Amino acid sequence: MELEFKITGIFRTSADPGPAREAILTLLKDARSTILSKGAPEGKGARITSVDVDTNGIAINITSDRYVRAHDAILRLRKPLAGLLGKEHRIGIRGIDITQYLVTIPSEQPLGELKIPYVNSMEYTQGALVLSLDVGLSEIEKRIPDRIISLIEDKVTASSYGGKGEHWDLLWSSGKKAHQFNKDPTPELVKLGWIKRGASRGQWIHGPQSTAIFRAFEHIVIEEIIKPLGYREMIFPKLVTWDVWKRSGHAKGVYPEIYYVCPPKTRDPEFWEEVADYYKVTLEVPIDKIASKIDKPIGGLCYAQCPPFWPFLQGETLPDDGFPLLVFDRSGTSHRYESGGIHGMERVDEFHRIELVFMGTQEQVLAHSEEMQKKYMHIFNDILDLEWRMAWVTPWFMAQEGLTGLADKGSVGTIDYEAVMPYKDEWLEFQNLSVNGDKYPKGFNVKSQSNQELWSGCSGIGLERWASALYAQKGPDPDNWPDAFNKIVGELPEGIRFL
Amino acid sequence: MELEFKITGIFRTSADPGPAREAILTLLKDARSTILSKGAPEGKGARITSVDVDTNGIAINITSDRYVRAHDAILRLRKPLAGLLGKEHRIGIRGIDITQYLVTIPSEQPLGELKIPYVNSMEYTQGALVLSLDVGLSEIEKRIPDRIISLIEDKVTASSYGGKGEHWDLLWSSGKKAHQFNKDPTPELVKLGWIKRGASRGQWIHGPQSTAIFRAFEHIVIEEIIKPLGYREMIFPKLVTWDVWKRSGHAKGVYPEIYYVCPPKTRDPEFWEEVADYYKVTLEVPIDKIASKIDKPIGGLCYAQCPPFWPFLQGETLPDDGFPLLVFDRSGTSHRYESGGIHGMERVDEFHRIELVFMGTQEQVLAHSEEMQKKYMHIFNDILDLEWRMAWVTPWFMAQEGLTGLADKGSVGTIDYEAVMPYKDEWLEFQNLSVNGDKYPKGFNVKSQSNQELWSGCSGIGLERWASALYAQKGPDPDNWPDAFNKIVGELPEGIRFL
Repeated sequence: MELEFKITGIFRTSADPGPAREAILTLLKDARSTILSKGAPEGKGARITSVDVDTNGIAINITSDRYVRAHDAILRLRKPLAGLLGKEHRIGIRGIDITQYLVTIPSEQPLGELKIPYVNSMEYTQGALVLSLDVGLSEIEKRIPDRIISLIEDKVTASSYGGKGEHWDLLWSSGKKAHQFNKDPTPELVKLGWIKRGASRGQWIHGPQSTAIFRAFEHIVIEEIIKPLGYREMIFPKLVTWDVWKRSGHAKGVYPEIYYVCPPKTRDPEFWEEVADYYKVTLEVPIDKIASKIDKPIGGLCYAQCPPFWPFLQGETLPDDGFPLLVFDRSGTSHRYESGGIHGMERVDEFHRIELVFMGTQEQVLAHSEEMQKKYMHIFNDILDLEWRMAWVTPWFMAQEGLTGLADKGSVGTIDYEAVMPYKDEWLEFQNLSVNGDKYPKGFNVKSQSNQELWSGCSGIGLERWASALYAQKGPDPDNWPDAFNKIVGELPEGIRFL
Repeated sequence: MELEFKITGIFRTSADPGPAREAILTLLKDARSTILSKGAPEGKGARITSVDVDTNGIAINITSDRYVRAHDAILRLRKPLAGLLGKEHRIGIRGIDITQYLVTIPSEQPLGELKIPYVNSMEYTQGALVLSLDVGLSEIEKRIPDRIISLIEDKVTASSYGGKGEHWDLLWSSGKKAHQFNKDPTPELVKLGWIKRGASRGQWIHGPQSTAIFRAFEHIVIEEIIKPLGYREMIFPKLVTWDVWKRSGHAKGVYPEIYYVCPPKTRDPEFWEEVADYYKVTLEVPIDKIASKIDKPIGGLCYAQCPPFWPFLQGETLPDDGFPLLVFDRSGTSHRYESGGIHGMERVDEFHRIELVFMGTQEQVLAHSEEMQKKYMHIFNDILDLEWRMAWVTPWFMAQEGLTGLADKGSVGTIDYEAVMPYKDEWLEFQNLSVNGDKYPKGFNVKSQSNQELWSGCSGIGLERWASALYAQKGPDPDNWPDAFNKIVGELPEGIRFL
C-alpha cells in the first residue's frame, strides 16, 4: 500500500472549449511524460485517468503517488492549458473547481475520532486511511492538503510506535553517591518555614532562606557561566502572544499546559462598574459576568522562556563579528499548567528560570554547547557535588510541538540534566541544554551578514529544580552542603518566625 | 431629606397567633422605647407603623432612620416575639418574609443606569433616590442591605464631587533644575537599539544597555535601602487569585486594568488535539476553539505586587521582636491593561518593580516610612540628581478600589514621587511609598504576640519609571549622567548590533 491521491477537477472556461478539443487532448496526453513527472523518480508522478471536454470547461481525473501530488499536478496544468486556449482560441480559464479529492494513506491501524479542518471524512479500510478532502484552488495554493497529509502521517507514525514516550540515551553519569538525606524535601522545607504554598495551584511563596539559595544559584551561574563566557543580560517579555508562538513552533502543540491571558474588552470604568458593585454588595467575585467582559485569549504566560526574546532580532541582519551572540534573561516567572494533584517544589505551575540563548554559525553553536557542558559539569561536580547524569533526548521544541524522535548526537537536540531523588529513587530533570538548529533564526527571519546559515541554542536553568536536587540529596541543613556551595551562600538570613 | 428605611415583613407562625394578639401588640408597642432605639441617639431609631395579626402570622411595617435600620429592627424583634409565642402559646416562628423594602437615600442628582444585585428598582424623586430591595432574611443576616446603602452613598458622594480626580498635596520639591535633554526619550532609545517593542501591547524587550541601567537601579536600592535598613528578600507569586484580591481589597475595583488568567479545562492532550491539528493544517491559531476549551478566569497577573505575599503570613501570630518586619521582592513582572494608544517606556502594560513591604506597630510603621523618605531623598538628590517632588495623594489602595479622598498627613496614605518630563513639561509618578494602616494585617488575619494592632506599608520602585525619569531629564548619553550614578553603572555593555 502506497500513498495515493485521486482528484477530480474542472477547469471552468469563459466559452465552449469544443473547438480546441483535439489540442487539449494532445496537451494532456503529452503531460504524463513532461510536466506531470518532472522532478519525480523514473516511472513516478501523476497520471490523467480521464478527460471530458464539456461546453463549460474541461473535467479531469488525476491519480498520483507522493512525488507529483494530484493537487500539484492540477496546478501545473493550469498555465499550459490557459496558454493553449488563450492564444489560439481566445478562451480564458475562469477557475478550477475541485469536485472530489481522495487521499489514501497507509496505516497499520485506524486513528481515533479526529476533527481536522477540510477533511470531510476519514475511513479505515484494507491497511489504509482514505480521506475525502473538501478543498478548492485557494486551499491548494495555501498548501493545505500537504499539511493535512503530514499531520496524518505523523499520527500514523505515533500510533504505530504505540505512544509518545520521549527518547532517552545516556551520555554521562556521575555514578552513585552517598546521600545525607532521604526524605521528600518539600514537607521539610514547609516545616522549617522556608516556603509556604501560594494561593494558586502549584505555586509557592519563598521565605528569606529559600530565596537566598535561589540567589546563590544565580551567583554561581553569573560567576561560572555568564561572566567567563561573555553573556549579556537582557529582559525578555513574559506575556507571550500567538504571533510569537506561531514563529517559535509552540502553536503546534503547547495548548494543554498554557495559562491563557485575556485582556478586558475595555478599560472603561463604567463597563466594569456592574462587576465591582456586585462584589461590593455580595463579597463574591462574579466570575461569569467577568468572563463575558473579557476578550478571547491573546496568548499566555511565559512557557519556554526564549521565544519572546526573538522579536528583538526579527527581520534583522547581524554582522558576522557579532557571533556567537550570547544573551540571558532572569527577569520573571514561567508558568505551566502541570498535571493534577499536589506536588512539591519539584513540579510547580509557577517557577523561576535563568534562560541562556546562544546564536551563531553551526560550528559556533556546537562549540558553545560543548563549552556549556563543561561549565555545567564543573558546577554540578565541584560546587554542588550532586549525583547526576546527562541524557540525549527528543529535542525540547519537538516535544513541545507534540513530536517524538531523536536527532543524531552532536547535532540538533537536547541534553537533559537529571539528578536522583533519593527519597523516591527517581530522577528529576533539573536543567537542559539544547541546540535548536536553524529553527529560530528561520522562524524569526534573522540573517547573518555573510548569509551563512544561522543556528541557535538555549539552556534553561530552573531554580526550583536545582533547589529540589540539592535538598533531596543533601537536605536543608547547610552542615550537609558542600563547602564550595556554603562559601557562596554565606550565612543564611533569618526566616520569618511565627508563634 | 434624611436616609430613610421602610420595610414590610411577616413573621410566619406555626399556628394562628390570634390567642396571643394582645400580648403581641403590647410587646411591639413597648419595643419603640427599648429594643428599637437601643444604641441610637435620643429620639432616633426604628418605629413600627402598623401591625396586623393574621391567622398565618404577624405582618408588620417598620420605618427607620440610619441608627436602627429597619432590617436590623425586624431582626431584633424576632427573639422576643419567639419567646412570647413559644413559652406561653407553644407557637413557633417559621420564618420572616420581607414583602417590601424601600430605602430613601438623599442625593442632589440621579445616578446613571446601574445594575446592582438585590436592587429591583431605583428612582430619583425630590432630592433622593428611592431603592426597592429584593431581600429576604438570609440577605439581611449577610448584611447585604447595609453594603448596598454604603455603595450607593459612595456613588452619591462621588457624583456630587463631580468626578473621581485623585487628591494631591505637595509635600516637598527639589526646585527647578537645568536639564541636558528635552526630547521624548523612548524613540531615542529605540533608535539607539537599547529597547525594542515586544509582541504584546505596551511591552518592551530590553537590550543589554537598558538592562544594565535597570540593574544599576537595583544595585542602588540594595545598597542604600535593603542592606542598611535590613530588608530580607523573598519571592512573591506572580499569578494572583481572586481569594488574594478579596482579602487585599482589589476585588472592589481593579477589574478594568487586569490581565485575566484562564487555565485549560484539562491537560489531556486528546482534548486539545483538535486545536493543534487545526493550527498545523491552517497555520492559524483557532482562538474561538481555544476560548471554548479554557476555564473562566481564576484571577490575573500581578497588579499591585504585595498582595500575593500576604498568604505567607495569613492566620499567623508573629513574635513582638519580629517587628518591624521588612521584606522585598524583585522576582518578576507586573501587568496592567493601560489606556489605549502608543506609549513609550513611561507607561507600559508589562513592567518591572522592586516591591518593599514593612509591617509593625503603628509607631514602627510610621517611623519606618520616615526613614524610607530620607533614603529616597538621598538617592534622587545625591545619586540620580533628578528634578522631582513628593505629594500626599489618595492612598493607592483606595484609588485601586475606586475610592477617592485623602487621609490626614503623617498617618495612613500614599506619597507619590514625581519627576518632571522636560519634553512635555508634565510630571511622571516614578515611585510611591504608602502607609496602609491595619488594612493588610486585618484582611489576611495577621496578629502580633502582644495583640497590639498591626499596621503595614509598602513601596513600589518601578524600574521603567526610574529609567524614564533619568532619560527624560538627562538623555541616554552617560556623559550627561551624574558621576555618582556612572560610578554604579560602570561601563555600559555593548548593545546588539544590526546592519
